[in-house]
Amino acid sequence: LKSADGSSELRLRGQIQVDGRYFVNGDGSASGSTNATAAQAADTVLLKQFRPIFQGKLWDKYEFLLTPDFGGGKTIVQDAYIDAKFNPWFQVKAGKQKSPFGLERLQGDADGKFIERSLVNNLVPNRDIGVQLHGAFADNKVEYALGYFNGVIDGNSSDNYTNADTDNNRDKDYVARIFATPFKNDTGFLQGLGFGLAATYSNLAGSGTGVNTTTAQSATESNLPSFRSGLGQLSNFKYTTASAGATNGTYADGQRLRWSPQFYYYNGPFGLFGEYVQVEQDVSRVGNTGKRHDKLKNDAWQIAASWIITGEDAGYVNPTVLHPFNVDTGDLGAWELVARYSELNIDDKTFAGTTATSYADPKSSISKASAWATGVNWYLNRNLKLALDYEQTSFNDGWTTGAVKSDRPTERVLSTRLQLGF
Amino acid sequence: LKSADGSSELRLRGQIQVDGRYFVNGDGSASGSTNATAAQAADTVLLKQFRPIFQGKLWDKYEFLLTPDFGGGKTIVQDAYIDAKFNPWFQVKAGKQKSPFGLERLQGDADGKFIERSLVNNLVPNRDIGVQLHGAFADNKVEYALGYFNGVIDGNSSDNYTNADTDNNRDKDYVARIFATPFKNDTGFLQGLGFGLAATYSNLAGSGTGVNTTTAQSATESNLPSFRSGLGQLSNFKYTTASAGATNGTYADGQRLRWSPQFYYYNGPFGLFGEYVQVEQDVSRVGNTGKRHDKLKNDAWQIAASWIITGEDAGYVNPTVLHPFNVDTGDLGAWELVARYSELNIDDKTFAGTTATSYADPKSSISKASAWATGVNWYLNRNLKLALDYEQTSFNDGWTTGAVKSDRPTERVLSTRLQLGF
Amino acid sequence: LKSADGSSELRLRGQIQVDGRYFVNGDGSASGSTNATAAQAADTVLLKQFRPIFQGKLWDKYEFLLTPDFGGGKTIVQDAYIDAKFNPWFQVKAGKQKSPFGLERLQGDADGKFIERSLVNNLVPNRDIGVQLHGAFADNKVEYALGYFNGVIDGNSSDNYTNADTDNNRDKDYVARIFATPFKNDTGFLQGLGFGLAATYSNLAGSGTGVNTTTAQSATESNLPSFRSGLGQLSNFKYTTASAGATNGTYADGQRLRWSPQFYYYNGPFGLFGEYVQVEQDVSRVGNTGKRHDKLKNDAWQIAASWIITGEDAGYVNPTVLHPFNVDTGDLGAWELVARYSELNIDDKTFAGTTATSYADPKSSISKASAWATGVNWYLNRNLKLALDYEQTSFNDGWTTGAVKSDRPTERVLSTRLQLGF
Repeated sequence: LKSADGSSELRLRGQIQVDGRYFVNGDGSASGSTNATAAQAADTVLLKQFRPIFQGKLWDKYEFLLTPDFGGGKTIVQDAYIDAKFNPWFQVKAGKQKSPFGLERLQGDADGKFIERSLVNNLVPNRDIGVQLHGAFADNKVEYALGYFNGVIDGNSSDNYTNADTDNNRDKDYVARIFATPFKNDTGFLQGLGFGLAATYSNLAGSGTGVNTTTAQSATESNLPSFRSGLGQLSNFKYTTASAGATNGTYADGQRLRWSPQFYYYNGPFGLFGEYVQVEQDVSRVGNTGKRHDKLKNDAWQIAASWIITGEDAGYVNPTVLHPFNVDTGDLGAWELVARYSELNIDDKTFAGTTATSYADPKSSISKASAWATGVNWYLNRNLKLALDYEQTSFNDGWTTGAVKSDRPTERVLSTRLQLGF
Repeated sequence: LKSADGSSELRLRGQIQVDGRYFVNGDGSASGSTNATAAQAADTVLLKQFRPIFQGKLWDKYEFLLTPDFGGGKTIVQDAYIDAKFNPWFQVKAGKQKSPFGLERLQGDADGKFIERSLVNNLVPNRDIGVQLHGAFADNKVEYALGYFNGVIDGNSSDNYTNADTDNNRDKDYVARIFATPFKNDTGFLQGLGFGLAATYSNLAGSGTGVNTTTAQSATESNLPSFRSGLGQLSNFKYTTASAGATNGTYADGQRLRWSPQFYYYNGPFGLFGEYVQVEQDVSRVGNTGKRHDKLKNDAWQIAASWIITGEDAGYVNPTVLHPFNVDTGDLGAWELVARYSELNIDDKTFAGTTATSYADPKSSISKASAWATGVNWYLNRNLKLALDYEQTSFNDGWTTGAVKSDRPTERVLSTRLQLGF
Repeated sequence: LKSADGSSELRLRGQIQVDGRYFVNGDGSASGSTNATAAQAADTVLLKQFRPIFQGKLWDKYEFLLTPDFGGGKTIVQDAYIDAKFNPWFQVKAGKQKSPFGLERLQGDADGKFIERSLVNNLVPNRDIGVQLHGAFADNKVEYALGYFNGVIDGNSSDNYTNADTDNNRDKDYVARIFATPFKNDTGFLQGLGFGLAATYSNLAGSGTGVNTTTAQSATESNLPSFRSGLGQLSNFKYTTASAGATNGTYADGQRLRWSPQFYYYNGPFGLFGEYVQVEQDVSRVGNTGKRHDKLKNDAWQIAASWIITGEDAGYVNPTVLHPFNVDTGDLGAWELVARYSELNIDDKTFAGTTATSYADPKSSISKASAWATGVNWYLNRNLKLALDYEQTSFNDGWTTGAVKSDRPTERVLSTRLQLGF
């Protein structure tokens, strides 16, 4: 749908995702557990996304993207930005947008090879409000982005703050990313190779129930993330929060530095995709015996492979279906097989000390997660996609058996998605 | 508004309803009452509905309907589904949609003959997230639907859960409906006759403040409905909830079986419409003297008649206005007179016992409601409708006079609606 | 974007505003203060507005405007009305709309000369749900409006109630406004002059924590406003609310009468704009020594001037840019300089008595605010606008220095806005 008046146009688009999620053997809710997250593991049908999209271009230069999302029983703004493309190498994008950091995160929500993003996504900032200078040079072979944002915690968007889309601290995030596709104009086997590096820096403070160290900051939140599994989306890690009794919770207190090398490689119907993310985060906790302060290093990585068996070309976006599904003609659409391994490692220092002093409790928070996933994607046509994924995630720690720390039971999830985009 | 590219199209539509509601004599807020609902009976102007609608068809087969609703100060998703019409008798509809059960509920929100649905609507499931297989056979004379849904409580949508559009229990709803219009291709007086039968089944559990009987279930809600009047929409029945003191509340605990015979009959400008709904619901309550468990049978029925005095044909949808209202030409649009009787009966077992043990308290919850309504609809044209309704509802029980149980005062409501649809 | 079928049309429009807000010297959060509002003064980037707009006309007579707003992390309905234009002097507008009262408020949100409205806006009702009869006569030289609305508190919309867009009291607001542009068809220097008068009346009651004086009313809110600065939007005045301890809060208790003379004058590139607003509000507070009751008179006024240095004509709406900004041709767009002074005065009676008996506490609530603002607007073209404003607001009272009442520190704010409208 396009309506042009001179050099301007508006496109009205839409995206909807309906998921079915099935926990094999109900593993997520193992019996005998008092773990709070166990309760989340009910099979369910989800309205994952429901996004009308207003996209446009004005005066040949100013692009905008406005995307509310009504999925999951909440209404949030996914994208709301203006991108002034003064020049290929000088463009300014202001508003709410994806922070230019993670390769999997920057991939379109409809273009992902899997129903849910990998464990890596726990450490990657999502949508944020701010401004970025970006562009491409060297025959568009190198893209760069320099961003100034309000800042979001790992794996979260600015709408996840208690007051959605309202900054809760004074300090801002600086984000930089460079990504190269040096052989994109060649015809050789390296044509589909892209690689890059991204980093974010902030110096921020959160609150461990009133322990607000800097009076100029209004944080009433810890500004620390919690983590979850990929396909099952069950929570499996959180920093200690203040209890009703004596102790205070863990809170962000100092530098946060993220960096991520990343690459993809596409060759004919085959695709390979990988990224590594490390987050260094200064945290504190005030206990009865004084204040602890540490720099915690969490990291995560993934490697994913895909093969389109019907011969279409693989890529960072959905393939162009050669023969749309049609019962009459016997055309099958495009079929793709995918596999992925991802890992999340929490710093050991996180769990040092007792329940009263550690930054997180190993009896309920995992120290490591490893996930294998396989799946099949059926692209019926340009607009419709059906996916079936299976993921199995095993954990270190994060569970309690007879008051003793044990490993959280392996999570086995089967998930389907019906996706419509227009 | 339609924009076609080959076999696909997108329609951008909209619907808005502005209501005025006037409680005659302020009956809803009878003086001397300490009834909590009394306070709701203020005359008011309401923004009842505000729905942009994205409707489309892709590849001649895949239809979708996306409808957010901003009315009443909340934002919810009314419809968000994809309907794959592989075949007249084999169609799959996935996403958030109306549960295929009640005849009045399945009627379009803009097509209803009255400003508010009848008392029957209290027992009928509304929108739910899930999948249905549906279609028509025998020259489209028989429609069927078989659904698998997350499940909603009587009279509610999935957005009414504490976590909107998120399933709060493990067990699902199975829904079946068949509806026949056997004479639809005849020209005789039975041409406009349709009748059918619908049923839903679930086995679910709720919670009476921590009394969660099945550990594998995450219910923190009772999963029981409350009821309200038709035109006035004042709450008049609720199951006992946990008090701050000793006792626990009533909660769903076992089978829920709904069934409903239903019919309509249209002949020229005349219409007749009727349905009966019965709900069998297993409930429990844990008191100081032990746990009570019962199967409660609530039922409701309505009969409604309509007459279009300007000669248009009556039907399940709004009439096609022959002469749109125009001051210059003297055309009047279409005018319709409507009348309705509806009744809601609560099982006597609900009120057995004392306040400490009964499932609901007869001093604040009614045991029966009976409502007469009349109204006039003015269809100015295809897009605009003005309605004026009056409804009078009398009750058994549900009130307190001098600490003694009495009948809730008769509710008299006058309501207007201005409706725009495009 | 327009799509016409005969005499009807639908326009899909949009508006987005991205703001940067910078508190010079961090004045808003003066050190050593325990003032709760201090914490709000963090520099930030804001997604101020994000509004898809559905606007249309049906049958040449019935116009509608539907505007949800996703800005600021909330979803609200800004406009949702139907306007039946039976006649130039007889038009009926029903739904949620701007209450026809304040000149600056009635100006389109995208047409304002400043990034934020002036201090006067604290006393002016914003959007409300109701009906108005309006129109123009005498060659369209005189406009009138007579409204019947649910009623909103000063400076607020109906979506600011605890239950958004739901009336919280029985009594309604009556609004009247008349505005004349007597020389609009002349060519003399008075052509651009407009002036008018507006008033609202209501008799309403609020609640000071359970002190609900009229049992027929359901108010659980005080129905009194709080006030904030212009560009900084920091809260600086609120009526006393009930404390956890002994005392009850201040609440609306009787008549509320607003009136406002207003004018604008545009001549070539110059513009002048002014309005005065007074609000008389009956309030009560129940203390240990009995109930106090007073009629409080708050008022505010502003005068603003603007000059478009690139020669376009000034007006109540954005100027038509003669030469859209273009690097290649060297066209600059339109540039405008603006300046404003505004003042807000709180009735002295508000602060009479002790903390336990006064209607507001002068140690945390200001008694007067005066603000100077200057700015520059750059209209790149019809769709894009960049603004840079500076405002300096000084206060009487509203602060505490060493347990003694003092003046709230002067607030200095620098703000930018990027605005896109299509």
